[in-house]
Amino acid sequence: MEKKKLNVALVGYGFMGKAHSTAYLEAQRVFDLPVTFEMALIVGRNREACDSMRTQWGWKRYVSDWKDAVADPEIDLVDIATPNFLHREIAVAAAEQKKNVFCEKPLGLNVNECREMVGAVEAAKVFHMIWHNYRKAPAIGLAKRLISENRLGRIYHLRARFLQSWQIDPKTPWRWLHQKQYAGSGVNGDLNAHLIDMSRYLVGEITQVCGMMETFVKERPDKTGAMVKVDVDDACSFLARFENGAVGVIESSRMSTGRMVNNCIEINGEHGALYWDFEDMNSLYYFDNTEKPDRRGFKKIQALTAHHPYMEGHWSTNHALGYANTFINTLREFAISYDKNENPSPNFYDGLKNQMVIDTVISSVEREKWIDIGE
Amino acid sequence: MEKKKLNVALVGYGFMGKAHSTAYLEAQRVFDLPVTFEMALIVGRNREACDSMRTQWGWKRYVSDWKDAVADPEIDLVDIATPNFLHREIAVAAAEQKKNVFCEKPLGLNVNECREMVGAVEAAKVFHMIWHNYRKAPAIGLAKRLISENRLGRIYHLRARFLQSWQIDPKTPWRWLHQKQYAGSGVNGDLNAHLIDMSRYLVGEITQVCGMMETFVKERPDKTGAMVKVDVDDACSFLARFENGAVGVIESSRMSTGRMVNNCIEINGEHGALYWDFEDMNSLYYFDNTEKPDRRGFKKIQALTAHHPYMEGHWSTNHALGYANTFINTLREFAISYDKNENPSPNFYDGLKNQMVIDTVISSVEREKWIDIGE
Amino acid sequence: MEKKKLNVALVGYGFMGKAHSTAYLEAQRVFDLPVTFEMALIVGRNREACDSMRTQWGWKRYVSDWKDAVADPEIDLVDIATPNFLHREIAVAAAEQKKNVFCEKPLGLNVNECREMVGAVEAAKVFHMIWHNYRKAPAIGLAKRLISENRLGRIYHLRARFLQSWQIDPKTPWRWLHQKQYAGSGVNGDLNAHLIDMSRYLVGEITQVCGMMETFVKERPDKTGAMVKVDVDDACSFLARFENGAVGVIESSRMSTGRMVNNCIEINGEHGALYWDFEDMNSLYYFDNTEKPDRRGFKKIQALTAHHPYMEGHWSTNHALGYANTFINTLREFAISYDKNENPSPNFYDGLKNQMVIDTVISSVEREKWIDIGE
Amino acid sequence: MEKKKLNVALVGYGFMGKAHSTAYLEAQRVFDLPVTFEMALIVGRNREACDSMRTQWGWKRYVSDWKDAVADPEIDLVDIATPNFLHREIAVAAAEQKKNVFCEKPLGLNVNECREMVGAVEAAKVFHMIWHNYRKAPAIGLAKRLISENRLGRIYHLRARFLQSWQIDPKTPWRWLHQKQYAGSGVNGDLNAHLIDMSRYLVGEITQVCGMMETFVKERPDKTGAMVKVDVDDACSFLARFENGAVGVIESSRMSTGRMVNNCIEINGEHGALYWDFEDMNSLYYFDNTEKPDRRGFKKIQALTAHHPYMEGHWSTNHALGYANTFINTLREFAISYDKNENPSPNFYDGLKNQMVIDTVISSVEREKWIDIGE
Repeated sequence: MEKKKLNVALVGYGFMGKAHSTAYLEAQRVFDLPVTFEMALIVGRNREACDSMRTQWGWKRYVSDWKDAVADPEIDLVDIATPNFLHREIAVAAAEQKKNVFCEKPLGLNVNECREMVGAVEAAKVFHMIWHNYRKAPAIGLAKRLISENRLGRIYHLRARFLQSWQIDPKTPWRWLHQKQYAGSGVNGDLNAHLIDMSRYLVGEITQVCGMMETFVKERPDKTGAMVKVDVDDACSFLARFENGAVGVIESSRMSTGRMVNNCIEINGEHGALYWDFEDMNSLYYFDNTEKPDRRGFKKIQALTAHHPYMEGHWSTNHALGYANTFINTLREFAISYDKNENPSPNFYDGLKNQMVIDTVISSVEREKWIDIGE
Repeated sequence: MEKKKLNVALVGYGFMGKAHSTAYLEAQRVFDLPVTFEMALIVGRNREACDSMRTQWGWKRYVSDWKDAVADPEIDLVDIATPNFLHREIAVAAAEQKKNVFCEKPLGLNVNECREMVGAVEAAKVFHMIWHNYRKAPAIGLAKRLISENRLGRIYHLRARFLQSWQIDPKTPWRWLHQKQYAGSGVNGDLNAHLIDMSRYLVGEITQVCGMMETFVKERPDKTGAMVKVDVDDACSFLARFENGAVGVIESSRMSTGRMVNNCIEINGEHGALYWDFEDMNSLYYFDNTEKPDRRGFKKIQALTAHHPYMEGHWSTNHALGYANTFINTLREFAISYDKNENPSPNFYDGLKNQMVIDTVISSVEREKWIDIGE
Repeated sequence: MEKKKLNVALVGYGFMGKAHSTAYLEAQRVFDLPVTFEMALIVGRNREACDSMRTQWGWKRYVSDWKDAVADPEIDLVDIATPNFLHREIAVAAAEQKKNVFCEKPLGLNVNECREMVGAVEAAKVFHMIWHNYRKAPAIGLAKRLISENRLGRIYHLRARFLQSWQIDPKTPWRWLHQKQYAGSGVNGDLNAHLIDMSRYLVGEITQVCGMMETFVKERPDKTGAMVKVDVDDACSFLARFENGAVGVIESSRMSTGRMVNNCIEINGEHGALYWDFEDMNSLYYFDNTEKPDRRGFKKIQALTAHHPYMEGHWSTNHALGYANTFINTLREFAISYDKNENPSPNFYDGLKNQMVIDTVISSVEREKWIDIGE
Repeated sequence: MEKKKLNVALVGYGFMGKAHSTAYLEAQRVFDLPVTFEMALIVGRNREACDSMRTQWGWKRYVSDWKDAVADPEIDLVDIATPNFLHREIAVAAAEQKKNVFCEKPLGLNVNECREMVGAVEAAKVFHMIWHNYRKAPAIGLAKRLISENRLGRIYHLRARFLQSWQIDPKTPWRWLHQKQYAGSGVNGDLNAHLIDMSRYLVGEITQVCGMMETFVKERPDKTGAMVKVDVDDACSFLARFENGAVGVIESSRMSTGRMVNNCIEINGEHGALYWDFEDMNSLYYFDNTEKPDRRGFKKIQALTAHHPYMEGHWSTNHALGYANTFINTLREFAISYDKNENPSPNFYDGLKNQMVIDTVISSVEREKWIDIGE
């Protein structure tokens, strides 16, 4: 049987461009997927960087203007890995050209942008996906399975944090992600976005939040050495209430010395508890409160065997997976959904819902009080 | 040289009564202290329980009414290990009788009670101490030393949590600590009190908070099986701002399945970071950001050698200390301070300051907004 | 009911003297024991050190010559915490005086000494105990329970190690334990002794061994600075076969930089596995191979609740125990056995069996080949 | 500048075939290598499996007989990922055809085979490599760097273990690796091979060994259900002495319930210590004994930044690498060496030296005594 083939245009060639490229390269080798992804077109303004990436990674062609990519009749899928402020424009244009659209997170700069993007993909009836890759770690797949089996019972607590430290040095250069007009927000849209997505995936919808933001380093040098104002948050934490009665504590920072990619989640329920830390990404810690009292404890489950999610194509012999595999698994899920004529999960609707929480956190900080989501 | 001798009356014979008894028994053996503590009098209403404790633990005498203890001319020091609602009355009476006073935390039911207690010990010019024992773990002593040496530089973040799960079962019986009139609050005064004390000790004063409280199980059975309303918090988290510009996230719960005595603190600063977890109480994790970049990492320091705080009397050969040792070290500090005619730390002033934060958290929950401490 | 009272004479006032003193002080307070231990007599040649210990720890009397202690009609129990070369002589003399005898490990300098000691306590029909305290950690009690329930099935593997580093510096002074005539051997009798005891307790009798010894630092300075030859092992490892078909790898060292009291044991069986590390002494790690394949993992069980061994007297609320508690639990077991007119476990018979393995390891090293125990 | 291009023939399409394929796919994308690898030919007897692998992984052509691959004039490099008993024959034939040769470990069934293979590549003057991939984990690269800087000083101890459990069930089917004529040995050649390679890489040459082997399950069912004798070791441990005076304890097993890919190494030296566990493959634990005594501890270094080995092409932002990356890094090293006209490390000489230890362990087991390497 002939596999469906999708010609991909990737807009962006930075860190995320490489992550997505690995997915296009590997997913169809590691897994026996119903869809073939053709690495057709790489798009970026920096001709040299982009062409070198084309050669090294095996993208077929290169164009410098995303508008050419979106208009290209050969292209079936536009994958947006640009700075945040370009997401909306590219996604809407791509949808209008009936391209399927993938987008990095956060979906847009704010809820209004996200609404427009959702409207565009709905109107065009194209497939859409947002790269919340952490959901696709096998250990998180196992967490979802345990929760779906009701192993935790009523959920009381969620605590999640995403701590980094790459900005600790005040001389760390100013980039687009330090300015609101390009990034929307700081760690709130960058890191909390992941935590919100994971929380919604595992616990449910958030109804109310109250936040705190801080910018410890108020200006940073640009390439010329000139100091530029940082108008987004270095750190953002918030308290949350969930529809199902659970309470949450969520925190992100780029100024947490000692912490690298410390993306953690813990959930405590009536019958059990779970925690996960991306820095030990292949393990899920599970506490089963229904066991005999003298032998209860957090169990470190290495979710790396044939019995674990996404493992039909990976080693399945307990040999470690890495960060790349979360992107590979995300693309696998798209291929399977696409083949069934369904949108994958997470998609632009998730991107919008995540953004509603992100924006409400900002409002709560400005107003110094609790706010209902969407209020 | 003759050592000073203090005759102690201990009011309370429960969990904390045993913890304090261990301190009186051990501190002067383990350490060569300038003060001798005589286990003179144990006080409690339950004659049988109290007498059995007297025999087993070697307290000399027993009385059932704390008023007799406070009035007893032989007694030099009254140690209050009762339920919270009795702290104020006993402490004030003891101070009026010129007894030195020790008190379990939280100091009182609310700031007003604490103010009265501080007033009483000041007026009487007696020594006073509050049993914030966790401060006295050797690993925390080392944390204090590193911070005092400015190894962390400007502090950006504190996160602290105290998670327990002994109340998970809705049939866990109702006790005094489930009712506001006896306990003041739930985990806020019980567990956050410790976190606030530790935060103030290591980071500095808190200026502003915004909290969230939840009571997941609204009523519990008393001894007769009758359901009694729980009017205090099962869980309480809050965001905080510190005088020195740091931000904090603090959370306590008795409904965190899988977590036992998960009393943790993490501090991230400009030049380094620290974390500690009581469940691994003898280790301090320290990250030194000034090391060569290829060899930076969190270091697990077992604070159990002769080079670590409080170790002149303990094994000092890396053999584990336990919970009891935190009380033993607390009493050691009192003896040393007393001998120098100084109040030990922490004392009633700390108890009051901690209570100001506790009460402000409650206000912020009621008013659903950020509140300045003392506002 | 009147409790039986035993007047104790403790011979030795060093590290182990303090450990045992803590046990006499605490065991009868923490637990409601059928026996009362009276701290009657402390014995040691250094008058000043010994007298200061008498005062500080509350021993009633002091004598400098152990012969006086052994002959003292008031004494019921002689506890030997001296350097190894004195064990035999004191134990035999004490038994001849019909005293019950406790002895630190290793029981003697060699199998011949141990046989004589066993003969003496048998002839005198007195109670005897050896202080293999690590057996009495609650987590090890839980390990024993799980094995007794056959949760591991047929046992395949044991690996145990006891790594220290206090001798790393070549200037670490020469002491009695660096010379064969005083110590019997180096880490073999000092640290392997514990591992052998634990292995026999949990897995069964060892039948065959092959060992390796090394002395990395061949001489050390004594108090005068003169260099003295070290004629015992700094490091000793051996391979072992057990009666039940299991194989073992056992290693001890005082030259393992970075390792402090790294006393670990791991057992892998047909249906499950266990491991324990004294540096995390309150946790037992248990893997249950009969669980569903997608949720198997090593579980960290904190053996600190009312459901765990020895916890009827300790906190039983998950608050950490320390090294001292292993001695306290050892004495508790003696009291309970004594009250039933039984010898406690472990006792001199265990000491002898452990020594047979120790001595055979030495033979195997000398002969560079595998040797049967007792061959 | 034109990159050199090598046409690769891969013999074998199982687990290792996939691991090597990932390396050919990824290495030249992740890194900017001086060599291009063309996935030219996949070789295997099972036409269906092999052809499906060709399609899915993008190998250009397929042949069923390795002799055709070796004779194919288009092929520059023959990569042997077959069962062990075929290594020698294919490698020798490939060398005779002047192909460069890569080989999975162990190099051959025994020292004689390895000698013949070394002779063949020497005679042919071709490049040769052995896939000891674990060496190439970034954390091990950092270990090598620290040792090269003499951070450990004189090395006292090595302990290494490779524990698996996939054979625990006696019904785990018989495969070629359970029979000596196909596998050479059991875990000794399979897992100890890796430990020996790592030990030689980090500590130096082994001079003397004494081992123990056990086969717990003596026969296993083949595909028809018939029971077939297992004549290789399920478990093999050995004591070792190194040329530089260090002592080692090395152990492998496929019957260690609870352990999956527990490939660990620890090295203790005069000035510091290191340990690594493949199950946490991106971290190196380092203890620096020259630090101030109150702040010494094992440091968990996540070797995932731009400052760590092999990271010029990987994320270098602390995002986890996986097992695949160890193969990718191995191939990277080959490309760099090849470009300089040098053999990569490790190569067939390492394979031979490793095999000399493997074979001597077997002799020592048979003769129940210590044996010098090569004796």
